[in-house]
Amino acid sequence: MEVRAIDLAEKFDLFAEHWSPKIVGELNGQHVKLAKLQGEFVWHKHDNEDELFFVVKGTLVIEFRDKKLEIAPGQFVIVPKGVEHKPVAQEEVWVMLFEPASTLNTGDAGTSALTKEHLDKI
Amino acid sequence: MEVRAIDLAEKFDLFAEHWSPKIVGELNGQHVKLAKLQGEFVWHKHDNEDELFFVVKGTLVIEFRDKKLEIAPGQFVIVPKGVEHKPVAQEEVWVMLFEPASTLNTGDAGTSALTKEHLDKI
Repeated sequence: MEVRAIDLAEKFDLFAEHWSPKIVGELNGQHVKLAKLQGEFVWHKHDNEDELFFVVKGTLVIEFRDKKLEIAPGQFVIVPKGVEHKPVAQEEVWVMLFEPASTLNTGDAGTSALTKEHLDKI
Repeated sequence: MEVRAIDLAEKFDLFAEHWSPKIVGELNGQHVKLAKLQGEFVWHKHDNEDELFFVVKGTLVIEFRDKKLEIAPGQFVIVPKGVEHKPVAQEEVWVMLFEPASTLNTGDAGTSALTKEHLDKI
């Protein structure tokens, strides 16, 4: 694979759907993904994967069973494996995700219209 | 470990040294590190680790044996394991790194004044 600079803004311009992560990089068995979020996602956890959300645009809220975090642009949060969470985006939020290639977006919540089993590489 | 939002700007304010990565997150055996770079680093490669450089401020140049890449803020590059590279920062550059916890900054170049065997967590 050719080594090249990946421009986040350019990649974000390539898609509009919400809750549909796109793969923009792969390293050490991990994926770098970009996603646009709007509205409320489902409560779920990942039994085997820690998950990093880095916010590029907008303010992401992640609800936990015991608290709620606001993540602004230039901030990230790491959700450890096994921890239930629900991402909420009142307005559109753009995030960069860093997580193992095995990570399913809806985790243990079961398959639904939100579940993306096959992610596009862009 | 408490789940919380990590602010890059706040973390960058905590140190000034160049070529001395600080650990700001850990997930799935990988580290998230911040570093300030200025000047020329040494040619090296990592035999077992792919390495991601995400540029936060300034323009990073990474020289390869066959080309030179410029990485601007909002862009990242993944340097695959085994690929020789030399980071160069004409002016100060701030980067976020994603790489396995086992990664030594000078790779196979041998121990020198630039080598950081023990990284601070900030």
